[in-house]
Amino acid sequence: MQIISTIAEFQKWRRQVENVAFVPTMGNLHEGHLSLVREAKKNADAVVVSIFVNRIQFGEGEDFDQYPRTLQEDAEKLKEVGADIVFAPAEQELYPDGKQHYFIEPPLLQNDLCGKTRPGHFRGVATVVTKLFNIVQPDVACFGKKDYQQLVILTGMVRDLNMNIRIVPVAIERAEDGLALSSRNGYLSPEERCQAPELFQTLQTMATQMQQGHTDFIALEKMATSKLNQQGWQVDYIEIRQALTLAKAQKSDKNIVILAAAVLGRTRLIDNLEVHLLHA
Amino acid sequence: MQIISTIAEFQKWRRQVENVAFVPTMGNLHEGHLSLVREAKKNADAVVVSIFVNRIQFGEGEDFDQYPRTLQEDAEKLKEVGADIVFAPAEQELYPDGKQHYFIEPPLLQNDLCGKTRPGHFRGVATVVTKLFNIVQPDVACFGKKDYQQLVILTGMVRDLNMNIRIVPVAIERAEDGLALSSRNGYLSPEERCQAPELFQTLQTMATQMQQGHTDFIALEKMATSKLNQQGWQVDYIEIRQALTLAKAQKSDKNIVILAAAVLGRTRLIDNLEVHLLHA
Repeated sequence: MQIISTIAEFQKWRRQVENVAFVPTMGNLHEGHLSLVREAKKNADAVVVSIFVNRIQFGEGEDFDQYPRTLQEDAEKLKEVGADIVFAPAEQELYPDGKQHYFIEPPLLQNDLCGKTRPGHFRGVATVVTKLFNIVQPDVACFGKKDYQQLVILTGMVRDLNMNIRIVPVAIERAEDGLALSSRNGYLSPEERCQAPELFQTLQTMATQMQQGHTDFIALEKMATSKLNQQGWQVDYIEIRQALTLAKAQKSDKNIVILAAAVLGRTRLIDNLEVHLLHA
Repeated sequence: MQIISTIAEFQKWRRQVENVAFVPTMGNLHEGHLSLVREAKKNADAVVVSIFVNRIQFGEGEDFDQYPRTLQEDAEKLKEVGADIVFAPAEQELYPDGKQHYFIEPPLLQNDLCGKTRPGHFRGVATVVTKLFNIVQPDVACFGKKDYQQLVILTGMVRDLNMNIRIVPVAIERAEDGLALSSRNGYLSPEERCQAPELFQTLQTMATQMQQGHTDFIALEKMATSKLNQQGWQVDYIEIRQALTLAKAQKSDKNIVILAAAVLGRTRLIDNLEVHLLHA
C-alpha cells in the first residue's frame, strides 16, 4: 500500500491502473469505513481511499478544528484490509488559494433534514466529492448508508451531472448494542455511550409499529421524538421518508427510510433504518 | 465521421479511443467553429464536436426557441474539416426529466459583464459543459475567445474543480470587415450587417489610445460608449479589464482585454480585443 499526498503523484499512479474503486473519507477510521473498503475491493482492480478533513463542509461552530486527525493509525488499518492507495492531500493541494470558487449546488433536499441545521454542508460535500472524483477518476465509489442523505444527494449528483461512476451503497456497521459506528462516537462520555443505543432502538420500535400497520407517520414521529427528549436527548428530527427520494412518505409507499438526528450531551448523532412495507 | 445521438452509443465509441479533443457547440456552425475544430485536430487522436442547444443557459425572453437548428449543414461542414464524431443528443438525453437538478455555481464573475443582463447564463453554461465533459471525457477542450467571459469562467472551473482537462483558447475569426463571426450575425438586416463592424472598430480605437499612453480607462470606456450610442447602437457595456481574471484593469496592468456588448436593432452582439501594454 502506498500513501500519496499530491495530485501530481496520484495521477502518475492512476495512469497505470485500469479500474479503480474509491472510498472518500475524513479519516479517523472505524469498522464502518473498513466495510466500505472491503466492498470496494469486490468492485475493481485497485482501491483508493482518500483521507481529507474537508473544511468547506463544516459550518461555523462545527468541529472542523477538533476533528480527529489519525493518519498513522488509519493507514495501518487500511493496509490490513487491503487498500492499494491512501490519497491524503494537504489542504492547499485541494484549496491552493485557501478557498473554493466553484461549487456543486444540489437541489432543495440539501436544506432538508441535516441540511436544516448545517447550511452549506451538502454543497461542501458535493463539491469536494466532485473534486476527488475528478482527481481519482474512479469507476466505482462506495458510500455508507449511515450518511443516508449524503448518499441520496451524491447518487443524484452522479446521475444528474452524467458522471460515469457507479455508486455502491454499503450497509451501516453497528456496535453489538446497535449503535451505528461513527467517528463522532468518540466524543461521547462513558455514560453517554451507554445511553447512545436508544437512538437506534427508537428507530426499530417505529419500524415495528409500521410493520404492524400504523400508518399515521406524523404521530409515530411525534411519539418517538418526545420519548427520546424525555430520555435526555435533544432531537433534531425524526422523519419517515421515501427511501429513494427522501420526500415525505405517503401511506402507500413501500420503500421507506426512517431518519433521525439527535444530540446527546454535546454530541450530535445520526442514524437511520430502511423499512420495506408489504401493503395488502 | 459518425453522428451519435445517445450517451450510451457515445460511451461505446469512447472506450476504443485514447485521446480526445472536444469542441462543444450549439450548432449553426460558421468559420469560427471550424477554426476550433482545426485547432482540436492538432491536440488529440480524435475530435468530438457536440451540437446541443442548451435550454438552461438561455434566459426568459432570449432566443432559445428561434435559435437556428441546422444539423445537416453542420455535419457536412464538420466532415469536411475532419471531425471524427458529432455528438448531437436530443434534449431528453441530457435532461431526462426536463430539467437540471444539480448546478455548477461559478463565482461572482458570473454576474458581471454579460452576466448582468443574462442572469443564470454562465451557471447554465458551466453546468452543461461539465455534463458534456463527463460524457465525452476529453483530454483537451477548445473554446473560442469570442466568448471571452465564458472562456475565463470555464478555465477557472476546470482548475477549481480539478478537472483533468486542458483548455485551449482559440483566436476570434472575423469577417473581412472585422466583424467577429457569430451565429447571431444571421439575425442582422443587410443594413445592420454593414454597420456591425463599428463594434470592433471601436475596440481597435480604444486599443490604439491605450497603446499611445491613455491611462484614464473610465474616460476611454465612456467615450467609446457614447460614440457607439450616437451611431445608433444601444451599448450594454464596454469595459477595460485584466485579461486573466476580468477584474477591473489598473494603470499598471499589462495584459488587458477590452470587452463590449451592444445591441444593433434587435440583435445583441459581443466582441473583445486583447491589448498587451508595454509599460516603461
